[in-house]
Amino acid sequence: GKSVDETLAQADAILHRYGYQSSSTLRNRINQEKVFFQDIHLSHVSKYIAMNRLRPVDTAIIEACDITPDGKVYLTTAIGISPILLEKASKIIIELNSFHSPRLREIIDVVVLHGTNSWPKGLDTPMSRVGKPYAQVDPSKVIGVVKNNEPDEVAEFSDSDETCVKIAQNVEKFLLDEMIKGSIPKTFLPIQSGVGNIGNAVMKQLGESKEIPPFYMYTEVLQDSLIPIMHCGKLLGASTCALTVTTKSLNEVYSNMDYFAKRIVLRPQEVSNNIIASSQLGVISINTALEADIYGNVNSTHVTGTKLMNGIGGSADFSRGAYISIFICPSTAKGGKISSIVPMCPHIDSSEHSVQIIITEKGIADLRGKAPSEKAQLLINNCAHPMYKEYLFNYIKSSKPGHIRHNLDKCFELHSNLLNFGTMLPE
Amino acid sequence: GKSVDETLAQADAILHRYGYQSSSTLRNRINQEKVFFQDIHLSHVSKYIAMNRLRPVDTAIIEACDITPDGKVYLTTAIGISPILLEKASKIIIELNSFHSPRLREIIDVVVLHGTNSWPKGLDTPMSRVGKPYAQVDPSKVIGVVKNNEPDEVAEFSDSDETCVKIAQNVEKFLLDEMIKGSIPKTFLPIQSGVGNIGNAVMKQLGESKEIPPFYMYTEVLQDSLIPIMHCGKLLGASTCALTVTTKSLNEVYSNMDYFAKRIVLRPQEVSNNIIASSQLGVISINTALEADIYGNVNSTHVTGTKLMNGIGGSADFSRGAYISIFICPSTAKGGKISSIVPMCPHIDSSEHSVQIIITEKGIADLRGKAPSEKAQLLINNCAHPMYKEYLFNYIKSSKPGHIRHNLDKCFELHSNLLNFGTMLPE
Repeated sequence: GKSVDETLAQADAILHRYGYQSSSTLRNRINQEKVFFQDIHLSHVSKYIAMNRLRPVDTAIIEACDITPDGKVYLTTAIGISPILLEKASKIIIELNSFHSPRLREIIDVVVLHGTNSWPKGLDTPMSRVGKPYAQVDPSKVIGVVKNNEPDEVAEFSDSDETCVKIAQNVEKFLLDEMIKGSIPKTFLPIQSGVGNIGNAVMKQLGESKEIPPFYMYTEVLQDSLIPIMHCGKLLGASTCALTVTTKSLNEVYSNMDYFAKRIVLRPQEVSNNIIASSQLGVISINTALEADIYGNVNSTHVTGTKLMNGIGGSADFSRGAYISIFICPSTAKGGKISSIVPMCPHIDSSEHSVQIIITEKGIADLRGKAPSEKAQLLINNCAHPMYKEYLFNYIKSSKPGHIRHNLDKCFELHSNLLNFGTMLPE
Repeated sequence: GKSVDETLAQADAILHRYGYQSSSTLRNRINQEKVFFQDIHLSHVSKYIAMNRLRPVDTAIIEACDITPDGKVYLTTAIGISPILLEKASKIIIELNSFHSPRLREIIDVVVLHGTNSWPKGLDTPMSRVGKPYAQVDPSKVIGVVKNNEPDEVAEFSDSDETCVKIAQNVEKFLLDEMIKGSIPKTFLPIQSGVGNIGNAVMKQLGESKEIPPFYMYTEVLQDSLIPIMHCGKLLGASTCALTVTTKSLNEVYSNMDYFAKRIVLRPQEVSNNIIASSQLGVISINTALEADIYGNVNSTHVTGTKLMNGIGGSADFSRGAYISIFICPSTAKGGKISSIVPMCPHIDSSEHSVQIIITEKGIADLRGKAPSEKAQLLINNCAHPMYKEYLFNYIKSSKPGHIRHNLDKCFELHSNLLNFGTMLPE
């Protein structure tokens, strides 16, 4: 949980860290260069642990509902990398949390992939079950069991603001258009949705849409807005590696396990985020961008290319092979001081090759099959905020012709302005 | 072939183009903004044609050994996107080329993937055959058959220079170390190798190595140096989508079909380059970089971020899911006027998340599990040319601390120098 990262970071007890994080103290330590952080795809975390690529794991603390004398560990709401840690760590401490429903095992499906990132046989639909309801540990490695009775720490989302709602409406509009054109079948396709406020708003919109048919999800994390959508029957089922929901929503699930147990599968991270999943299952991926450049490259992680926010997470696990890959963001941030559409991204998490659709509250840019010059026109005309359009068009004019027009003396002028004056377009 | 692109480009007969190209005239037209070129992964070309994502294909010209009245098309040395074009194009012209051995069908394995990029069932090893020896066409679409008797146009590689040989030796050294550490099994793993002079030199080195065991390849294109390696038994077998070899080498294959037919499989591009392949088969990918930045991002395609060379090709199809992903390049180009290790890449084809190992003639940087600050030290110390080391270290010092140190006012100074003075470090 977040408080573990917070407490350990405050105590300066973290030296190396891999993959997504969302603790403000840990983020500061990383940006102060006090913690060695490698931002890797979430699918790669367990893969690399399995391959002995990261530093050896000494002690792992694993939350569980139950552990048997022969080493069956019944996990709780987050499977994540627990199964591979149980195999690879030298010592294990089990946090036995009685808050969770013992019926969680009905929705857990554990397959551990070793070394390569290959795809479990039989995983042909989002809801396919191909593994076991528990993870296995060598009982002799368990050096302690700590009892606990505490819910997960998940903050409620703030109400969607107008911008979020418009982005969500644009996503709905785009998907309906694709259905009408026949590019998405009437039975729809599985959706992956990134974490955060905007992703939450998009899923709420799709869940309440009268025209989007009932659908499945194959995603990384199940957020709050999905529980009512599932309870009312619109979300037919979801595969995920964690339930990241508030205590209220979790209690709703636990009180209705007969209903939810048939509709949720919790998998290890290397299966939920496997690079093969999007391709194999035909996933529509929807992820949040920090900024996108006029040629469709996306920065998801580093403000001005230097300061880490949270990390790439699973965004590029899903977008790379997705049937349709969508990135969403507001056209501006900080009350207009920051444009999310920029001449060049100073850090790239998903290159133009993985970015098919970009959607802001202003509109939709469908970049599929488009040359760079066409992409730039679409992104500026449809997605950029009006106050930045002239600047962006002038940037292109100031650049020499080429397959991709750039002016290396001016490509980061907006970012430099932000660093120097606190706004991208000072008076 | 290359001359088709050349002739059509010279006649200004190309308006839209997708994916890799290597014609100098077409390259110029693209960089003059006269041709709309979208640089997409080679795996995506057939995928997007299958999904009707690109512009409709009016007429396709397909080279074949034979066509039967019921529409079985026996292709020649390049399968590429021919099978999906035969399905999707409105009209087909068959170029019946009697130069090629009719026994080519023994090495051809056609499976057409529709819409999604999923993996053919049963393709569990590089040599698995899962399809048919021909592609299928609706015979009523064939509007003409043109007879021909000409070999492919493939230029001989120049002899490897000292730099190429040193890069190749470093690749061999790295792979042997991985074997000793147990990260690569003694039976080895399938290799993918990018096209070009350096890739050719690397494969020659591995093929002649006494310590590297016999191995398989799962790759995009089979180049000249692989034929003798296969003929002597070191290369046990190869899956590819094209034989891009000189007439001399091709004649060697055709004269020994009893031997080679068991050792080569020619597949459609969406299978050879499938994003799933590297993961599923545990491929070691070896691709050439144009430049890499000190944090391990790779530019494979665009000089100073603007001028297209050839295109991303299959490099990122293989590197993204590879068991080990290696990028190779000389530490400098143009007699030292260009450093291949730069502060920031002005275009990124493979982001740091897909780049595990970078090798130049100077040495090896193993970036696995490393934070950005550690990556920079490794790349400058081990891979950069001595004449650029001081500049690169000073760049880091001139940058403010952060998870990734960058100085947005100076990050493209080397590239701007190159544009203005013809050299990255003028006197």
